[in-house]
Amino acid sequence: MSWVCILMGSQNDWTVMRRAKEVLGSLGVHAEAHVASAHRTPERVRGIIKDAEARDVAAFICGAGMAAHLAGAVAAHTLRPVIGVPIASGALSGFDAALSTVQMPPGIPVATVAVDGGRNAGFLAAQIIALHNEAVREALKNDREAGQRKVETATLED
Amino acid sequence: MSWVCILMGSQNDWTVMRRAKEVLGSLGVHAEAHVASAHRTPERVRGIIKDAEARDVAAFICGAGMAAHLAGAVAAHTLRPVIGVPIASGALSGFDAALSTVQMPPGIPVATVAVDGGRNAGFLAAQIIALHNEAVREALKNDREAGQRKVETATLED
Amino acid sequence: MSWVCILMGSQNDWTVMRRAKEVLGSLGVHAEAHVASAHRTPERVRGIIKDAEARDVAAFICGAGMAAHLAGAVAAHTLRPVIGVPIASGALSGFDAALSTVQMPPGIPVATVAVDGGRNAGFLAAQIIALHNEAVREALKNDREAGQRKVETATLED
Amino acid sequence: MSWVCILMGSQNDWTVMRRAKEVLGSLGVHAEAHVASAHRTPERVRGIIKDAEARDVAAFICGAGMAAHLAGAVAAHTLRPVIGVPIASGALSGFDAALSTVQMPPGIPVATVAVDGGRNAGFLAAQIIALHNEAVREALKNDREAGQRKVETATLED
Amino acid sequence: MSWVCILMGSQNDWTVMRRAKEVLGSLGVHAEAHVASAHRTPERVRGIIKDAEARDVAAFICGAGMAAHLAGAVAAHTLRPVIGVPIASGALSGFDAALSTVQMPPGIPVATVAVDGGRNAGFLAAQIIALHNEAVREALKNDREAGQRKVETATLED
Amino acid sequence: MSWVCILMGSQNDWTVMRRAKEVLGSLGVHAEAHVASAHRTPERVRGIIKDAEARDVAAFICGAGMAAHLAGAVAAHTLRPVIGVPIASGALSGFDAALSTVQMPPGIPVATVAVDGGRNAGFLAAQIIALHNEAVREALKNDREAGQRKVETATLED
Amino acid sequence: MSWVCILMGSQNDWTVMRRAKEVLGSLGVHAEAHVASAHRTPERVRGIIKDAEARDVAAFICGAGMAAHLAGAVAAHTLRPVIGVPIASGALSGFDAALSTVQMPPGIPVATVAVDGGRNAGFLAAQIIALHNEAVREALKNDREAGQRKVETATLED
Amino acid sequence: MSWVCILMGSQNDWTVMRRAKEVLGSLGVHAEAHVASAHRTPERVRGIIKDAEARDVAAFICGAGMAAHLAGAVAAHTLRPVIGVPIASGALSGFDAALSTVQMPPGIPVATVAVDGGRNAGFLAAQIIALHNEAVREALKNDREAGQRKVETATLED
Repeated sequence: MSWVCILMGSQNDWTVMRRAKEVLGSLGVHAEAHVASAHRTPERVRGIIKDAEARDVAAFICGAGMAAHLAGAVAAHTLRPVIGVPIASGALSGFDAALSTVQMPPGIPVATVAVDGGRNAGFLAAQIIALHNEAVREALKNDREAGQRKVETATLED
Repeated sequence: MSWVCILMGSQNDWTVMRRAKEVLGSLGVHAEAHVASAHRTPERVRGIIKDAEARDVAAFICGAGMAAHLAGAVAAHTLRPVIGVPIASGALSGFDAALSTVQMPPGIPVATVAVDGGRNAGFLAAQIIALHNEAVREALKNDREAGQRKVETATLED
Repeated sequence: MSWVCILMGSQNDWTVMRRAKEVLGSLGVHAEAHVASAHRTPERVRGIIKDAEARDVAAFICGAGMAAHLAGAVAAHTLRPVIGVPIASGALSGFDAALSTVQMPPGIPVATVAVDGGRNAGFLAAQIIALHNEAVREALKNDREAGQRKVETATLED
Repeated sequence: MSWVCILMGSQNDWTVMRRAKEVLGSLGVHAEAHVASAHRTPERVRGIIKDAEARDVAAFICGAGMAAHLAGAVAAHTLRPVIGVPIASGALSGFDAALSTVQMPPGIPVATVAVDGGRNAGFLAAQIIALHNEAVREALKNDREAGQRKVETATLED
Repeated sequence: MSWVCILMGSQNDWTVMRRAKEVLGSLGVHAEAHVASAHRTPERVRGIIKDAEARDVAAFICGAGMAAHLAGAVAAHTLRPVIGVPIASGALSGFDAALSTVQMPPGIPVATVAVDGGRNAGFLAAQIIALHNEAVREALKNDREAGQRKVETATLED
Repeated sequence: MSWVCILMGSQNDWTVMRRAKEVLGSLGVHAEAHVASAHRTPERVRGIIKDAEARDVAAFICGAGMAAHLAGAVAAHTLRPVIGVPIASGALSGFDAALSTVQMPPGIPVATVAVDGGRNAGFLAAQIIALHNEAVREALKNDREAGQRKVETATLED
Repeated sequence: MSWVCILMGSQNDWTVMRRAKEVLGSLGVHAEAHVASAHRTPERVRGIIKDAEARDVAAFICGAGMAAHLAGAVAAHTLRPVIGVPIASGALSGFDAALSTVQMPPGIPVATVAVDGGRNAGFLAAQIIALHNEAVREALKNDREAGQRKVETATLED
Repeated sequence: MSWVCILMGSQNDWTVMRRAKEVLGSLGVHAEAHVASAHRTPERVRGIIKDAEARDVAAFICGAGMAAHLAGAVAAHTLRPVIGVPIASGALSGFDAALSTVQMPPGIPVATVAVDGGRNAGFLAAQIIALHNEAVREALKNDREAGQRKVETATLED
């Protein structure tokens, strides 16, 4: 229960989604990333879920733009936590993806993060893993302290 | 190629979706309606699509609210026209369902009608059938003329 | 019943609308494109509709921006399927065109696709034609399989 | 050039649009109101415009909801001022009608007033007439003074 | 009653508002343009109104961005038609200016045109003047015919 | 510098604005409330400002709906703090009033509180007065402690 | 790591948030609910977090309306998963709460569910616990199957 | 009571927030600026508030983007006026920050200015100080007169 499966609807989403993988890597969490579209390759999506569950994945992170159905489609096929990243693509600035991701019906939740929030998807998955993994917990603590120091040492030039 | 398959995500959507069936009935088009959720019963959705295609369905009409994925999920599994009806449920007045239905990625179109536009979904399906069905074409023509007369005979009381 | 008539409100819309024509061409569907404005040349719009109907057009695709009335104006003058493409022009990012296109009153449906969704308008028109045209059906199937392969072979560089 | 032609897309719009007629009546301006839909009865719309122009109408007031095209359709067929009243009907609270009315392309303006702003449509039409009509000018002046007195004599109970 | 007074809240608005003046010029209507802010120079606004009324102005055109109060402030001090142009400045793309301009209370209408719709403000003012001015009426007619020809002769390169 | 002048655009706004007066009363701050419209009675607005400044008012609180210009109009005529309360009236739920109140141009700030936030307008005015008034400071402190106790003693029935 | 701490900004939020507790109860997960405001009782919020962490809480669920800061404030003080429920209160229908909850900065994620989505917050928390708790996993599986049956046995009366 | 404490959530916000400091400087008001995040360094935020209150700060100005909680977090810990500047960062153009800043619950007001309105935050703080500081009052008056002159001397090139 210590690795994360990242899916995205198109190769273009990798700019945002790679940050999820980078964050997880920096926290010592293994992650695998796949392109798989809820609309173009629904079978492939199910295949990846089955395989990941068989290998005890802790959480799924799904990024998609526009009518972003990927996270919901994954959530429909697993009982493990699914984290959704709305991606700002197309004309509507991600408003469409945000609503398509977060407004899920009762029983099929998607844990939605900010528009283009790839990094926070990684942090959230790591927090879930950290509940039973002290090394990740420690890494999260260090990261947050580093974030504090970065704020505390910021300088504002006149 | 002369009947229509209507799907909706929950029994509550029937208030809106029954109007699609009523319109089709009044135009002489057979329609069958099912509750089937993209998130709760994805297998069932696929089963209904397979069965409908085997019986030469002309179009699908799909109604759903909030993160309305049903129309997109159907479109992902068929090459026949899919008509989406965004339903205004929940706090966001159907803005969420409208964007989740219309903003589909290239290759997987959903023919979206107005929020709560069950009737127009029926008219659109009938127009598709009417291309090769003179009786339906005649019925559509009569309906439009009746609509004109209704406008022309409207009275405005002081 | 095997060709498509494409209309757009202004020459600027061609950037988006040419993709509808390209998609149709790649699927073996003939399409003709015209500039015709619901507001500047309403007679011309009606003339194009009459002519296209006389030559057994299968569907109209209409693209317009801002207060996008073109698709609705065409739908008011024909009983054949009308597909609307909201175009993102001006300051409001296509929100205006999307609502002006999709929120049609009962009896006059417009099959709306995504903002700037020229390609999906082409796919939707082809799906309608494919109901009675095996070659187009085959082409759509091939296209979808190609789309699947593109997803399946996408690579994510580190 | 001293009367106003009021059009509305459906009989339901009369609740809002009758206020335009009432305001005009109270200012001594004759007004005629018709139901005529840009989508259901485009010929009728053109007929009403032609007739009104022949009888030297000063302005048109057009009210419609959802994808509100009526004002734009009238503006496309006349060179006289067209005032648009977006009407809040359906799920989207009039946001759709407001954008569909105001975002007109260059050359075909619609003078848009507030959502459900039937009264202000009447005032605006009267202001146009008042430019060449002293009685209406006087009536407008009296109305504004009455409005001032109403504000000045308002009482706020504890 | 044959000239138009153009006001704008800041010099930056001139990019949009000069198009109003250009349109009026091309239609043979005299126009004068001033920078005058409802918030920074309310006295100046009133002075310009008084002076313009004394010289029989036919209409005011007011452009402003953000919390666009200029058109409303002018409308509060005159009984002549006031045309408002919402200008897209700042972060909110003109949504703020559009609502601030169009949502006026009963009795104080502002004839609102599209966001950044300087040209249509000019056309609308000209239409008001044309009611009693045959030369302007003729110019409007010619312009509309030219617009039609421009649409009719548009070419779409493959 | 220890009293507050409350203005509102119409008598209907009193439902919201009376809460500002009640909060101020409960904190021991004198307040006077007037109906005065930026659009209908601009002179009256200026008269009230002049009078209030002559009597050393500490702040203005202005509530208005739709194209809410009142707070901005007051801010244009005083250098004292002006607090704006957007009021949800009409079809657009206060989105219009919020943007019309908060998006002020540089140099003329309006301190905007929540839609229908009459109470917070009172608290904010009291905070300004409390900077130089120990009794009000003490009252604010007591109020906040009471608010804490209310939260701490809330009970959730099963 | 098998219980959940529920917080809400005000007693009024209990209508929505009690559904989170009910869902968790039905899945065999213990939950405790508290009223605690990020703005009125920040110390109390921190106290509840400290206490819950000491007793090995698995996740926090936080519900709040308007400028909904509670989930973010909790996330700032813990490294455990924080689930946010935007609540539709006030004039803006929950749009404000949704954006205030989901748009968190990098490093401090909030797992956001639908507006008023109390039930899904419960399901998501249970999914996190179920990763290491077979009984909860089984309960989730049963619930989903019940949901499927409910869809499959829905009947649509004519 | 004559200086202002400026906080911002990240160093990136300084582009907007430095304008607050510049305005205050030009009006003769001392200001100190700090980076301090409500989410990353809540203790630091409280420390800065305590220190500023001990040195008799007149007001806080807080700028933050996305789910902008900083102003609310400061308001929760002080009874002095807190001015919030929503900053347009991320995909949603500052709509998220505007709603997260202004929609505060009763008892904890934030005086919100325009999106990216750093300058007006400075003016508002200066107005509060000016109530008891004649030099600042005089500076504000001069600034406003300069603003008037700038408008009055603006030139519009043809």
